[in-house]
Amino acid sequence: MGIIALALFLLATLLLPRPALAEDGYDLWLRYRPIPEGEAAAYRARIAQLVAPAATPAQQATRDELLRGLGGLLGTAPATAEAVDADGALIVGTPSSSKAIARSRLATKDLGREGYRIRSVEIDGRKATVIAANDDAGAMHGAFHFLRLLQTRQPLDALDIREAPRTQLRMLNHWDNLNRHVERGYAGESIWDWHKLPDYVDPRYTDYARANASIGINATVLNNVNASAQQLTPMYIEKAAALANVFRPYGIRVFLSARFSAPKEIGGLDTADPLDPKVRAWWKAKADEIYKAIPDFGGFLVKANSEGQPGPQDYGRTHADGANMMADAVKPHGGKVIWRAFVYSHETPDDRAKQAFNEFVPLDGKFRDNVMVQVKNGAIDFQPREPFHPLFGAMPKTPLMMEFQITKEYLGFATHLAYLGPMFEETLRADTRVRGEGSTVAEVVDGSLHGYKLTGMAGVANIGSDRNWSGSHFDQANWYVFGRLAWNPQASSRDIAEEWTRMTFSNDTDVVQPIVAMMMGSREAVVDYMTPLGLHHLMGRSHHYGPGPWVQGGPRADWTSVYYHRASKDGIGFDRTTRGSDAVSQYAKPVAAQFDDAAKTPEEFLLWFHHLPWDYTTKSGRPLWDELVVRYTHGVEQVRGMRKTWDGLSGRIDPERHAQVATFLAIQEKEAQWWRDASIAYFQAFSQRPLPAGYAPPAHSLEYYESLEFPFAPGNG
Amino acid sequence: MGIIALALFLLATLLLPRPALAEDGYDLWLRYRPIPEGEAAAYRARIAQLVAPAATPAQQATRDELLRGLGGLLGTAPATAEAVDADGALIVGTPSSSKAIARSRLATKDLGREGYRIRSVEIDGRKATVIAANDDAGAMHGAFHFLRLLQTRQPLDALDIREAPRTQLRMLNHWDNLNRHVERGYAGESIWDWHKLPDYVDPRYTDYARANASIGINATVLNNVNASAQQLTPMYIEKAAALANVFRPYGIRVFLSARFSAPKEIGGLDTADPLDPKVRAWWKAKADEIYKAIPDFGGFLVKANSEGQPGPQDYGRTHADGANMMADAVKPHGGKVIWRAFVYSHETPDDRAKQAFNEFVPLDGKFRDNVMVQVKNGAIDFQPREPFHPLFGAMPKTPLMMEFQITKEYLGFATHLAYLGPMFEETLRADTRVRGEGSTVAEVVDGSLHGYKLTGMAGVANIGSDRNWSGSHFDQANWYVFGRLAWNPQASSRDIAEEWTRMTFSNDTDVVQPIVAMMMGSREAVVDYMTPLGLHHLMGRSHHYGPGPWVQGGPRADWTSVYYHRASKDGIGFDRTTRGSDAVSQYAKPVAAQFDDAAKTPEEFLLWFHHLPWDYTTKSGRPLWDELVVRYTHGVEQVRGMRKTWDGLSGRIDPERHAQVATFLAIQEKEAQWWRDASIAYFQAFSQRPLPAGYAPPAHSLEYYESLEFPFAPGNG
Repeated sequence: MGIIALALFLLATLLLPRPALAEDGYDLWLRYRPIPEGEAAAYRARIAQLVAPAATPAQQATRDELLRGLGGLLGTAPATAEAVDADGALIVGTPSSSKAIARSRLATKDLGREGYRIRSVEIDGRKATVIAANDDAGAMHGAFHFLRLLQTRQPLDALDIREAPRTQLRMLNHWDNLNRHVERGYAGESIWDWHKLPDYVDPRYTDYARANASIGINATVLNNVNASAQQLTPMYIEKAAALANVFRPYGIRVFLSARFSAPKEIGGLDTADPLDPKVRAWWKAKADEIYKAIPDFGGFLVKANSEGQPGPQDYGRTHADGANMMADAVKPHGGKVIWRAFVYSHETPDDRAKQAFNEFVPLDGKFRDNVMVQVKNGAIDFQPREPFHPLFGAMPKTPLMMEFQITKEYLGFATHLAYLGPMFEETLRADTRVRGEGSTVAEVVDGSLHGYKLTGMAGVANIGSDRNWSGSHFDQANWYVFGRLAWNPQASSRDIAEEWTRMTFSNDTDVVQPIVAMMMGSREAVVDYMTPLGLHHLMGRSHHYGPGPWVQGGPRADWTSVYYHRASKDGIGFDRTTRGSDAVSQYAKPVAAQFDDAAKTPEEFLLWFHHLPWDYTTKSGRPLWDELVVRYTHGVEQVRGMRKTWDGLSGRIDPERHAQVATFLAIQEKEAQWWRDASIAYFQAFSQRPLPAGYAPPAHSLEYYESLEFPFAPGNG
Repeated sequence: MGIIALALFLLATLLLPRPALAEDGYDLWLRYRPIPEGEAAAYRARIAQLVAPAATPAQQATRDELLRGLGGLLGTAPATAEAVDADGALIVGTPSSSKAIARSRLATKDLGREGYRIRSVEIDGRKATVIAANDDAGAMHGAFHFLRLLQTRQPLDALDIREAPRTQLRMLNHWDNLNRHVERGYAGESIWDWHKLPDYVDPRYTDYARANASIGINATVLNNVNASAQQLTPMYIEKAAALANVFRPYGIRVFLSARFSAPKEIGGLDTADPLDPKVRAWWKAKADEIYKAIPDFGGFLVKANSEGQPGPQDYGRTHADGANMMADAVKPHGGKVIWRAFVYSHETPDDRAKQAFNEFVPLDGKFRDNVMVQVKNGAIDFQPREPFHPLFGAMPKTPLMMEFQITKEYLGFATHLAYLGPMFEETLRADTRVRGEGSTVAEVVDGSLHGYKLTGMAGVANIGSDRNWSGSHFDQANWYVFGRLAWNPQASSRDIAEEWTRMTFSNDTDVVQPIVAMMMGSREAVVDYMTPLGLHHLMGRSHHYGPGPWVQGGPRADWTSVYYHRASKDGIGFDRTTRGSDAVSQYAKPVAAQFDDAAKTPEEFLLWFHHLPWDYTTKSGRPLWDELVVRYTHGVEQVRGMRKTWDGLSGRIDPERHAQVATFLAIQEKEAQWWRDASIAYFQAFSQRPLPAGYAPPAHSLEYYESLEFPFAPGNG
């Protein structure tokens, strides 16, 4: 065949359709799609060879990820080499795993086990890039950071990056039951196929570990805090061990939620009293058994004496008694106990917001040194907006872990686009004032304020068996931002949104900017169309789907909406001032003083702390009722704007993901309107005031909204 | 750039790694992977252009499938053309949709609405292939057949194919609940995302329709026969309509399972008595409402007075009264009612096997002409082996539909490789003898024996949200063979296995042959290691996972194992002879006579019909006890052989699927051994006989096997 014929044949072959990589979201932010040729060439010159050890599973995983990532981004993976022998080497490792790293003599002190440096260097006159760490875990984090530079199109010249996590434990909490139902899960069922474990180890578990490692998550609690004792039986320990084996090379430790009454349910004891020697011996033996199967087991997460769960108070003991017993059991193995502060007693209280504080502050200093107390961001329950939990700053002797909810139980499930970064950031930047101005929640959590020896942040996972992991493409950003903020609670949620958008959708500025803008405003839109001005917990009963401000009756007053909004003819809002439930006094004095005074309370918390008449004059000059209607309506309009933004990106995003997001935004607009209309219809019955001029009345009657039922809404507990 | 440089550049570009198409099973048997170049060229010459109308959604879907399939198989899709103007045209359509088809004057009588012809022809001196039908539905079936020819590497010369389905209704029954739990589902949760419907229509629904259409399935019941009345509320009718809209172009009609007591539960009536005019009016109005949303709605499937479900007997009415009331409601719209014969009364009977027959035979001739009675293949419940149901042949005036279970509730869930084709075929070829020799079950089902006006076959789906749809790669074959046998109940399950293997794994003979051999023996292996010699229903209580021959007590005797095996010191087996429960007499005389006599009973049904002493001499000459042990052991050995076969195919199958199947086979071997050992340990306590020489004792004690608990086994009801 002549050379021309050959060229034509090759050209023809090139034009054959290449199978498109489906953009179904499975690859998350690790898509590694090819960088356009012009830019790729420059990167290739900088990454001509890879010098990375592969002597341990962690090193192997790091090298594999670099080869996969660079191969995808640059069209071809760099050659691997034992030593630098060309310009453009990428050298990865620790002083002990890599001779090249040892020779580079880069200082890695202060980086800890998980930190790393990325630096442009010259080695024997050759340009190279070094990713240096003290431990395989740090090298892996550095490798993901390096890939991120390419994914977000950063230059690789003159790199001098130094990163170390500001918290020790960056953890997902899976509320996954052993039957694969995920409590508050909106992304299918649990990815843990317990039935087929330990024999069948789904390759997806590895992708889960990769995704988490890429954002610095280093711990995972496999099962629901509403735990089954079965999780601690030998059969399920073996299954958990199989998962731990997958996660270990990625630097991720397995924890388990422990049911406090397990000694009775699976141990054959007649009590679970934490001071009973038999019970203590049982937990000790159980811990020994688990550590035999999972040598790097992280420890136990416990929800006790809360929402019907068993706990030490069943035996007249304190939370500290319970936590310390379990802490003693895991201590010899280096394990930890994470004890949740989300508790409330059987009797309905005057104000549920106060309970965790009242129960836990007296216990400060009474916990073992391997116990952490995990505190939700706010005192109620993961609402679209809550003021920071008063426990932050109030337990200087007890390491407090932050608990955020990544899954959108109260923010529209999977179909509403709500980027939670600004919400997490708002809490982290809140100033407790306990040691003067600037005593932020972030500084409590990262340990700097009180000198905690243990630090950490937990996120309730939004991960399920759905192809795109999180139920929607944008909910992946919430997993992402949680990990990045856990690594650095001082980071900017906007920067993280941009980083994620570049990795997930596009590096084109005219795509990145509108997406980031949309994300940054999205959570505020939810607040407005669901619970503006500090309203909270007005969702449908039990499943929390859709509006339910009329919810009342049932087993507990504090499981109803009317308990929280307290609307009547005279006004609306929960009086938590010194004249009311006095919840404000749980905060440091200057904060309490601010929240105690309606005029000084930030408007977004107004009805959280105050019961105000319908004609109360808000900052806009409008009466409260009018302001509520304006905010509700504004929320809907915001969603309409998001739809417009997204429609404008048609053709700039792959059609597969564009179509799904567009449909979800249409659902969100419909449901935002439903929220607005139902809420206004309901509250108008109390305010008995007309809508402000130009504001449309609800589309249906209040009776209609109240009649809607959703017995099969997903994620119910 | 010189031509040589260009050629080298193109060559280099070609050598860049192409992203591999993941072989994760999602594509089922519609993989359309490229045919090797040599063979592809010959096919391309035959398919140079596609002349196919696209004026209706069904035509569009057919053309899209051909373009997708041929594009994948041949590397490039044929050009589409309005009329034949080149050699190698593929012409698709009906006389009314396509001028070319009309001009071809191919006789399409006798093909019905769904049949088709595929014929090599000459048109104006040009070679062409015609796919001709009377209706879009037939053209689509023909298109899938044509693609199958390429997928299985058949020649396209001198084609003269004529196909029409032998049954009218080829239907999947989804046992899917509205909360997405799938009863007896082992492939994740329901693919129906009810919560997001009707607004979000998952593209997966289209792939579901394509897969079904490709094997001739034309009806689907969306929800569990243990139905929720909510399915019939306006909200859920709207959701079902959205699915019907997706399926319509593929010739698939939606049916719904109806809860008999719905008039009370969602209709506000105080009764569901089928003779009550209010109730009748309610169903009529409900049918009108459904048909307004789904004009081609198929009708209702009803499980009544069975396993606690409500039904007409609650009001002293018969099954015919109930079915006829609903039949009258859908009749004006051309709808059907499918009434399940799987019934049993509240009181535990002497022999549950007899009940359906006893209740239904007296009703023969009493059903409306749009009612079908759906009968499970055997009289107990989808066991690994059952004799054919005595109702087949016993209701000449009532169209009986076959109900097979595709999901492997009793055959090892998703991890055991058990190809059900031979099991379906065994039942279909069974001879009822009701009109002399050759009165096969297939002829009952296809209507030829009794002249049924309505015919059909239903399969309980094994489909779920798992990426590979069925939980395992080989379980896809059970979906496939069900569809192909429903289309033609006389077809050979071996031929279908080969066809499926070629489409799914490879066309290489040395891959096809061992896989087909493995598949064909696989179900018999399950029978042997679980329930040899006619034993049945010995699985773990309720979830049916693993061996449970010791199961006794609980709410009903006929939900226990001991009820079915009746083992004692004197022997084992259920005496259904004329000396026992007399179930044999429900069969036609010659069949009854055969089953009544242990010596004449096929050994695979021995203990189904006979209670025999442990030293009864079997056909092998071995005493019954020894024979049981030999069979149990043989089953395990068969699985060991399957593993060896599969290991031998390493490198011939993509690594992704090879690895999963290999792991599942390892699980199967472990569980087969467990079944064998636990069963032998249990029955030996009765037989009190030693194992035959050379047969290993159980690995553990009987107490050990009895102690195992699986509270979270999947699929539980």
